[in-house]
Amino acid sequence: MAKVGVILSGCGVFDGSEIHEAVCLLLVLDQSGADVVCMAPNKLSADVIDHWAQKPMAEKRNVLVESARIARGKVVDLAQVDPADFDAFILPGGFGAAKNLCDFAMSADNCCVDPQVARVLRGAQSLGKPIGLACIAPVIAARLFGETLKPSLTIGHDSATAGKIDAMGAKHRAVDATDVVVDEQNRLVTTPCYMEAKRISEAFDSIQKMVAKILEMVQQPVRV
Amino acid sequence: MAKVGVILSGCGVFDGSEIHEAVCLLLVLDQSGADVVCMAPNKLSADVIDHWAQKPMAEKRNVLVESARIARGKVVDLAQVDPADFDAFILPGGFGAAKNLCDFAMSADNCCVDPQVARVLRGAQSLGKPIGLACIAPVIAARLFGETLKPSLTIGHDSATAGKIDAMGAKHRAVDATDVVVDEQNRLVTTPCYMEAKRISEAFDSIQKMVAKILEMVQQPVRV
Repeated sequence: MAKVGVILSGCGVFDGSEIHEAVCLLLVLDQSGADVVCMAPNKLSADVIDHWAQKPMAEKRNVLVESARIARGKVVDLAQVDPADFDAFILPGGFGAAKNLCDFAMSADNCCVDPQVARVLRGAQSLGKPIGLACIAPVIAARLFGETLKPSLTIGHDSATAGKIDAMGAKHRAVDATDVVVDEQNRLVTTPCYMEAKRISEAFDSIQKMVAKILEMVQQPVRV
Repeated sequence: MAKVGVILSGCGVFDGSEIHEAVCLLLVLDQSGADVVCMAPNKLSADVIDHWAQKPMAEKRNVLVESARIARGKVVDLAQVDPADFDAFILPGGFGAAKNLCDFAMSADNCCVDPQVARVLRGAQSLGKPIGLACIAPVIAARLFGETLKPSLTIGHDSATAGKIDAMGAKHRAVDATDVVVDEQNRLVTTPCYMEAKRISEAFDSIQKMVAKILEMVQQPVRV
């Protein structure tokens, strides 16, 4: 049974994890027989967005606490996670990935990655563990691994974001909503999901393809 | 194409809609080709629970605004909904169904149903529109229709809750996580979902069976 860490960034597309992507991910992993642990950084969210009015709220919310809504309470502080204990990590999208896990939404190709996210993902990559990233989350891999590994990644067709991924040293590949880009050498699997998907069933198909590839990689021998 | 209203109660199992149930519902409806409109009452949530620590928070949140997180912003104020415009309504569970859509969590079989929820569901029932309710949400149907229609409903195997459903005039049927109870005469379909489910894939199967039956009923002639 593959043990997969799902890194969340809050609860809601505009300031946290995209909920459909996160839940489809948990569903597909469970249907595939994986053992799943949800995890998130224990810190304040960069902002809180009223998802109805779609404007900022004068509130403070904690990323770990809000992520627990998606995880039905069972979520681990990312600071407690040892990447060696897992077979793979997967990150759904949502603005939380670009505001809380890194600050790409504010700083673009000058962005920094949250130190705990960086520690866990760098550790996982150095141990040959596959990493899956959906929607906007691939910008995190571009920042962490772009200069050194020149990975192939996708966020779909958005040329402005694609240009920033290239500027961080990664190689962007434009693909459709439910396609995946597989970087076999660096064991990275990315998919546009709601960067391109128009409906939840497309997001599900996108996640399903990514998970299948990640679980296939888990079964493959790792050369570190 | 069936037009289905999904009535949400916030965002998170302990104070709103159970997120896995709600998202699985949106997924299955979309995969089935239904036209979906999310809706929620525009009022303060009965409470706000820290889902990580699992204790109350000193905050106020709005049910409609938080439901918009699940709906990616597209959610309608329930007060604006005319049941005649829809073919069916479905309510996922979570404590929000028992705290915000009615007050069963506080008042048990003395509970009251939110006036807008009562208006929409009574209207739908009187027009012969099928109504699906998952998890704890069937208590709302027990309160609204128990005395008059004596409907058959399920919340799974919890005998204390079952007894309160019976006390409101409905007939509780004990079934397993992924089973549905179909009251053909009253066009009500209920399923235990996370009242019994131990994992998200079970919750999905539960929702999938409920949706299939609701969409089958939509195709059946209605005698009002």
